[in-house]
Formats: sequence, structure tokens, C-alpha cells
Amino acid sequence: MSEKYTIGLDYGTDSVRSLIVNVETGEEITSALYNYSRWKQGKYCDPPSNQFRQHPKDYLEGLEFTIKEALKQAPSGVAEKVVGISVDTTGSTPVAVDEKGTPLSLTPGFEENSNAMFVLWKDHTSVKEAEEINELARKWEIDFTKYEGGIYSSEWFWAKLLHIIREDAGVYRAAYSWVEHCDWIPALLTGNTNPKTLKRSRCAAGHKAMWHEAFDGLPSEEFLTALDPMLAGLRERLYKETFTCDVAAGTLSEEWAEKLGLPKNVVVGVGAFDAHLGAVGAEIEPYYLSKVMGTSTCDMLIAPMEEAGDKLVSGICGQVDGSIVPGMLGLEAGQSAFGDIYAWFKQVLEWPLKNILAETKLVDEQSREKLIEETSDKIIARLNEEAAKVPLEESGIVALDWMNGRRTPDANQNLKGAIAGLNLGSDAPRIFRALVEATAFGSKAINDRFIAEGVRIDGVIALGGVAKKSPFVMQVVADVLNMPIKVARSEQACALGSAMAAAVAAGVYANTFEAQKKMGSGIETEYHPIPENVEKYKVLYEKYKKFGKFIEFEYEK
Amino acid sequence: MSEKYTIGLDYGTDSVRSLIVNVETGEEITSALYNYSRWKQGKYCDPPSNQFRQHPKDYLEGLEFTIKEALKQAPSGVAEKVVGISVDTTGSTPVAVDEKGTPLSLTPGFEENSNAMFVLWKDHTSVKEAEEINELARKWEIDFTKYEGGIYSSEWFWAKLLHIIREDAGVYRAAYSWVEHCDWIPALLTGNTNPKTLKRSRCAAGHKAMWHEAFDGLPSEEFLTALDPMLAGLRERLYKETFTCDVAAGTLSEEWAEKLGLPKNVVVGVGAFDAHLGAVGAEIEPYYLSKVMGTSTCDMLIAPMEEAGDKLVSGICGQVDGSIVPGMLGLEAGQSAFGDIYAWFKQVLEWPLKNILAETKLVDEQSREKLIEETSDKIIARLNEEAAKVPLEESGIVALDWMNGRRTPDANQNLKGAIAGLNLGSDAPRIFRALVEATAFGSKAINDRFIAEGVRIDGVIALGGVAKKSPFVMQVVADVLNMPIKVARSEQACALGSAMAAAVAAGVYANTFEAQKKMGSGIETEYHPIPENVEKYKVLYEKYKKFGKFIEFEYEK
Repeated sequence: MSEKYTIGLDYGTDSVRSLIVNVETGEEITSALYNYSRWKQGKYCDPPSNQFRQHPKDYLEGLEFTIKEALKQAPSGVAEKVVGISVDTTGSTPVAVDEKGTPLSLTPGFEENSNAMFVLWKDHTSVKEAEEINELARKWEIDFTKYEGGIYSSEWFWAKLLHIIREDAGVYRAAYSWVEHCDWIPALLTGNTNPKTLKRSRCAAGHKAMWHEAFDGLPSEEFLTALDPMLAGLRERLYKETFTCDVAAGTLSEEWAEKLGLPKNVVVGVGAFDAHLGAVGAEIEPYYLSKVMGTSTCDMLIAPMEEAGDKLVSGICGQVDGSIVPGMLGLEAGQSAFGDIYAWFKQVLEWPLKNILAETKLVDEQSREKLIEETSDKIIARLNEEAAKVPLEESGIVALDWMNGRRTPDANQNLKGAIAGLNLGSDAPRIFRALVEATAFGSKAINDRFIAEGVRIDGVIALGGVAKKSPFVMQVVADVLNMPIKVARSEQACALGSAMAAAVAAGVYANTFEAQKKMGSGIETEYHPIPENVEKYKVLYEKYKKFGKFIEFEYEK
Repeated sequence: MSEKYTIGLDYGTDSVRSLIVNVETGEEITSALYNYSRWKQGKYCDPPSNQFRQHPKDYLEGLEFTIKEALKQAPSGVAEKVVGISVDTTGSTPVAVDEKGTPLSLTPGFEENSNAMFVLWKDHTSVKEAEEINELARKWEIDFTKYEGGIYSSEWFWAKLLHIIREDAGVYRAAYSWVEHCDWIPALLTGNTNPKTLKRSRCAAGHKAMWHEAFDGLPSEEFLTALDPMLAGLRERLYKETFTCDVAAGTLSEEWAEKLGLPKNVVVGVGAFDAHLGAVGAEIEPYYLSKVMGTSTCDMLIAPMEEAGDKLVSGICGQVDGSIVPGMLGLEAGQSAFGDIYAWFKQVLEWPLKNILAETKLVDEQSREKLIEETSDKIIARLNEEAAKVPLEESGIVALDWMNGRRTPDANQNLKGAIAGLNLGSDAPRIFRALVEATAFGSKAINDRFIAEGVRIDGVIALGGVAKKSPFVMQVVADVLNMPIKVARSEQACALGSAMAAAVAAGVYANTFEAQKKMGSGIETEYHPIPENVEKYKVLYEKYKKFGKFIEFEYEK
């Protein structure tokens, strides 16, 4: 029997990973990781103003390094048996390109211009533009935001490009078109970067660019020019058709086949976003919410088109035919901060270490640094331990998980976090417990919205750092959701999902579910709600909602 | 010229202090401090259930030790020139006594019974009894709570004694009467502890026991027996008359004169509460709020009887003819937690030090302890420094200062603290700044209440640890109150106030104001509101009120 392999290429926020998977068995052969070098130095970013840009060279260097490295580590003969490569990236992460589809920052004169680079998903410089889009959309006869939850976000395609062309006349003049990161990599690998013909991802287009079949593609020229005359004509230089990730973008170009040491006939699949292919890798099933739980959460749900296709779920991040599993409606939601809230509290607690202990003369510099590092590194784990011991009803503290705004339900980036019920006995573990509960309540609010809008949820499949590392958090979430949670085994579900997509695009499997069945690595743990806790959390969740309603609708006004 | 001295004896929560003062010059000659030994060991207390009791032996040992020690340190000849002693104590801190006026815990069979000891001001075991008193008072034709702000507290006389006699049948049977700490010490020193004839403090009776001339003394027998038949007959064994602190309780008994090494003709003044005599020591003037700012605050205000005597100020801790300065209406308010809120936040921040760093093996035990202590000791000072650098409008965080409930305006011990406006950039100094602002807003709410009820406030005189040690906090309070704040110079204003009272009781001065003029140590610093900040705080204070209204009337329901 001749073995076959695919490569899943997963571009995250800080790094890119290549994973080589045996298509028959799902065995993860080797993987290699590359941390973006310019990004690591903080280049092209300005955190206080929420500007986050990435240089295409970081992506290119990572692409070449990780695939070659993974192949190098693999047993000999694997390279020749690679049949497909698929790519997932963060998104919406678009870049301005010239007529050839080259990112402007790779063309002369724009090398160091951050407006000519990829605008990372978490860049929030275009809050104003997003507001304008929402305002216009409310007035327009067709609501172009309706398949994106009804609220357009500053994290998305049109807001970002509008902001850039307004701010940077040079980029405006030089930009022939715009390309998402998840479209540019397959385009590059197949040698067709022509903006008008490269295969665009349904996932990116549908969730972030208001593309929908019912609109005959992107929002109308009239809408776009009403938004800003500077957008005139751009629609024509973008795309009308989009493709799901089971479709081949093409085969590896001669140049890249040689560069990577792979056969020329390797199929390159159409790209998609990381959380979407992560859900595939974690073996998402219809009506199961796949929750990528890390610094924030990305929540994915699939439902058969014939059952859910005509339902509009308001306040989420979009519903797109085939964005997760081709043939199924893909619905996306998420929490703006999850593990980031725990990290924030850790930072608050670290303050005496990093500002007072750091100046001590009692021990030498090296011991001092070690002591700070050792103590700091243990904070989250110890908080988890101690918080788990606090009886559920005891602390009386209720928090709102909006320290980074709220992505869903009902995006509102202006919201802030809050804590009520504090007394002089509220110690760090009790506050931490309330923060964990708050993130779980935020998850529950998303589930509630799906259900209220007629999309049932049968269970949760969790992946990501928090799901893997924090049994206490996971139990709280299971109790609050009153729903079992399965944690996917794979350590790199996104890359594995891409490898599955590549196997389908290469024709090894007829569809995603078949690929999942053969290549999936299954469930590692399952959390079951504890009935006693479920009842107690119902009461606390009502307090959370009451508190949230006040903060959102009265206090912040 | 023959010099004269008085002794101010100041019983605080943890310790007692004796201060010898030159009556002509106000010079503080010597002082001595005694930490209650049983209290220090945590005896007779149960913090989780808010039970705080003190053994009379702690008071007796401290009385003898501190006076003798202060005299020993003083130049020879001072003892013979002592003309008066006055006493201030915490309160309401009552004890059950037998027919001779001896606290039951000093009688056989009750030595270790915490119900036979002084029930410290902050003991909250009688929340239920306070509620019953309020309920009955609402229905009764005369509102006996009306001179105490309209809400009876669990920290006060009747609630405490009712709780004890219900809980402890032995104490109930043995208790002939009840005596406040501030009445027992002068009674003891003069040798007249007879519960029916010892001179009772107007201050304690008026602020804590619903005593008022208009009621012909304490609440009626009918009211008390309606509250509980167990109270039948007690009113007769308590008191009808009360005395201000300018009155002599008597002269030193032969026994005590000998024990302390003082002349027999030394006048012993009628006692009062510490915050009240602290206000005297800080040179309170009419319409100046004297604010003792420590773990909590005690806010004192005096106004001429003819101007304010017929005004009822609701929601404060009482208004009593002569309770602070004899001849003037004394009004009391206060915040349940002030410095305690900063200490709470310190404790939260200390958690990694005391729970993780404390277990390190990187350095030896001794270095470890030193590092923890050094770091911990600097937290509050560094937070003050760093918080002062945060621009006023920048943090966006607003907190409620109810972490220990709310004493005034409108006592509600069930309320809890809260924090709104948190984001991922909210670091420890920013949160601390919001907590400082919250305590200042709590002060402002008290000022607002006085003013709304027709009692003007011309300025603030601050004393206590926070006033002395934290210029940042004091500036914030001045800005929020939009009012200059004078900080009293004396390090021991309560003891100095007692020494002043002793000088009046001994007939050296005709009244308190005269004593203040001669013995006062003046103002150390003055804080002036910064107009720019005043305007900004007005906006934040509105947010504080809106937030507070929600938490009190909607969230906690």
C-alpha cells in the first residue's frame, strides 16, 4: 500500500506551523514552528493605538522554513508522497496588492510602510470606519451585514481597507486590489496571484467582506461608493466567486515545488481561517459548538443548509455556506477575551514582583530575576488550584468578562469589564474564580443567542490552550453551559484541520467528514456538568445578565 | 507659676495610650502605649462570624501600665501636678455588669465567657436584633431612632445586649445592668461603679442607646418590652441622666490614687468616644467636619444648638446635644472602610508573595522572609506614588467603597464593593487610584447628606493615619469634596482631646474651646482643591452615584 501525506500550514498570530499528516491513519508525522521575526521585535505595531501589522516576509520566511524543516525531520520518502497542502491563517488579515497580486510592502518604495502590510485581525485602527459601515448599512435597502450578525466590526476587511486608503494616499494610489492572508499563500504556492483570478476563500469573504450569493457577491458598487467615493471601481478588481476549502486552488508551481523539495503535482487547497479549520481538526459535528479557547475564543457551529440555511442569527460574526465544512452552514461567534482576562489578573498580581521585588538589594540580580520568574510563572496554576477550593456559593463575587470589549453576542468593542460583590475577604483566588465564571457566563450568552435564534446546540468540542491546560476552567464552563464538553486530543487542531482539507482538495476523500473520520485524533477528555453546580450557576448567571444590562445600557451612556 | 498637667487616656481597638499634657502650653510631656495582650492572641473573637470581644483585664492592665509608664518617663514632680484625667474609648462597647457594676467576666464562673466581656464596636453578631429594633421603631408612635439618623445599627448598645441575653441564659440571669467601656473606666477610677449612680456619658447614650431628653431618657419601658419581654425592668437599672465630658465624674479613689502614684484630688472627667474627643483634640470648630481617617472614618461635626438643634439629619449616626463639645450639637457620621480598602487591595496583591514566593527553594528561609516583608511593606507607598502619576481622566475605572458595607449615609451593612470600567490595561496603580477615588466619593456622599439636610460644612479637619501619611489620598479627597482640608498636627489627637476634656472637667478652663486654644497643637498641612480636578471629579462622582444606585437598589435585590 502506498502511503500518502498532506501538509497543514497554520498561520497563527505569532507563528506559523507546518504539520505533516499520514492521510490514511491521521498520524502526525512531524511538525515545525517559526516565530515571525519582525513581529517578535514589535515592528510595524503600535499597541496603544491598537495598530497591528505583519510583514509578508515574516509569512514567506515561515512558509519556507517550516515546510522544509518538517520534511527534514520526517522519514525519508515522505516528501515524494505528499499529495496536498492547505493553509489556514488568522483573519480578517488583508493586504493591499498591485496588479500582479504582490503585497505593496514587497514592492519598491513600500518596504517599510506599515499600511502596505497585512492588517492583522486584532488591529483596531478602523473603529470609525466600522461605525460608518454600520450606519450606512442601517439605511440601505438591503442589509449587507445581515449574514454577519447585523453588526460590522473594525476587525474586518472593508473597515480596514477603507481606513488605510484614507490614511495613506500612496497606498491608495498603488493598491490595485486587496487580498486576505489565507488567499495570498495558496495563490503564491500555485503561482497565480492575479487578484482577479486567484481563488478566494468563501470563509474569509462570507464572514468578513459581506460576500453572499444572495447579494450576487460583494456589496453593490452603489453601496461602496456611497460609503466612500474612494472605493469606486474596487469591487470589479476584487472577486465575485468564492470557494470552499475542499476545492483545489491549483497545484504547486514549479518554483515552489523546487524550493520546498516537493513534487509538482501536489494539490494546494483553497485557504480558510484558522478557527474554522481548527473546528474541522477537532472533528466538529452538526450542532456541536467548536470552541477554540485561548486568549480569546472562536466559536464555530455547523448545521445542515436545509435546516438552518434560512435562519438569520443576529449578533454573531456571520453565517456562511461552507465556511467551515463545505456543504454545511458555518456559523461563527466568539469572546473578545477569555484567557486574556486571566492573564490580565496575573499582571495585576505581578505588580509588586515586577516593580518592588525587582529593585531589592537583598539578593543579587540573578537570584532576583529567577525569583520573579519562578513566582510569576506559577501564578495562574496556583490561582486555578485555590479557586477550585472556594465553595461555589461562597465568594458572592460576580464579574463581567468585557475587559476587551465584547465580540458576540452583539459586538460592542466599547464595553468594559466590571466586578461586583467585593468585600474585605475577597482574596485573589476568590476574584480569580469570579473571573473564570465571568468568561463562562460570556460563553453561555453566546449559546443562549444561538438557541434563541433557533439554532440548537447539542454539545461543545473545545480546543486551544485553556481547554488543554485548565480542568478547573473547563469544569466551570461545563457547569455554566449545562452541557458536556469534549476536549480534542490534537495539540495542533488547526494544522490538522488544514491537512484534512488538503486531503479532500487532493481528492483522497470525498468530503470533510470522511477525512475527519480517518485523520481525526479523537477526544482527550470529556467534562460533564455537575447538576448541583448547574443550579447554583443559574442564579449567578441571572446576576451576570442584570449587571451586564446595567453596565451596557445605563452606566456607559 | 505652678504648672498643671492632665492625663488623656485613649482606649483604641488594639491598644490604650496615656498622654500627659501641660495644661498651659499644650506640650505633650510623655506618653505610653499598651497593646491588649489577650486581644493580640485573638482570644474571645471569631472573625468569620464577626464576633469581637475584649476582656476587662486587658483594659485594667493597660490602664495601670500606661499611666505609670508615662509618669515614670516624665520629669520628676509631674505626678503631683496632675489635676485631671479623662478617658475616651471605642464605642458602642458595652458589657454586662452585676449589681456592683463589675463586668461579669471579672466575677466567678464567667472568667472565660466571651458573652460576659465587652462587646467591641465592630462586633456584628447582632444584625438580626438591629433589624428587629428598626422594624419595631418604624411601627412605634415615637421614632426612637430619629436622633440616630433613623436607622439603628448592629454595632450599637441595645442590639448587642439583646443578642447576648438571648444567646446566653447565664449572662441574662447574672446581668443586673450594662455599662459602656467609656463609663466603666471613670467609674472605676472614682470608686463608684454602682450602675444606678455612676455618671453615664451623653456621647455614648445619645449616639448609641437612643437616649434623648425629648424621650425623657432611654426608649420607654413599653417599647423595650415590646422588643423583647426579656428586657423588662432593665431600663430602671440603667440611667435617666447623662453627662457631657466637661463634667467631673468624681475624684480619684484612694485605691487608684495609690496604685497610680497620683494625688487623691485628681478630677476624673466623664468619658466619651474616641472619635469625638479626637475631634476636640484636632480643634474642631463649628461647621467644620472633623474626619478621623484610618481603617474607617469617623466624621464629626458641631453646630450651635440654637442653629441646628431642631434639624433632623437622616441617615447619619446621630446628633446629640454636647456629645463632642458640650453646649454644641454633635453630629456623627462615618465610612465603614477607608484605609481598610487600600489594605484589602494590598492583600490581594500580596497573594503571590505569601503563597508562591513563600515556598521558593531558590533562597534560604531567612532571605525569603525578608524579601516578602520588604516587598509587602512597600506596596501601599509605591501604589500611592504610581497612582498619583496616572492622569485623572485616563483610567476610566470607577469603584464603590462598600467593601465593608456602608455606615453613612443610610447605614447598610449588607452592601458590597464593586469596580467598573476595567480593561486589559487596568494595572494595579490604576485600580488603586480608583479605590482611592471611591473612598473620597464615599466622603463626598456624607458631606452631601449634611448639606442636603440643612447643615452646612465650611471645611474639613483631618486626623488619623491616612491623613498623616498619604498626601496623594488627601489631595484626591480635597479635590472630590471641593473643600480645603486641614491636617491636625498632633500624633495622638484622641488622647490630646481627652487631656483637654480633663482640663475643663478639673476647672482649669471654663469650656472646651478655651482648652483647645491653649492646648491645641495646630495644623500641620493644608490641602487645597485643584480647580481643574474638581470639575473632572464632578463627572466621575455622577458615575459613582449611578453605579451605587444600581448596586444598592437593583443588583442586590
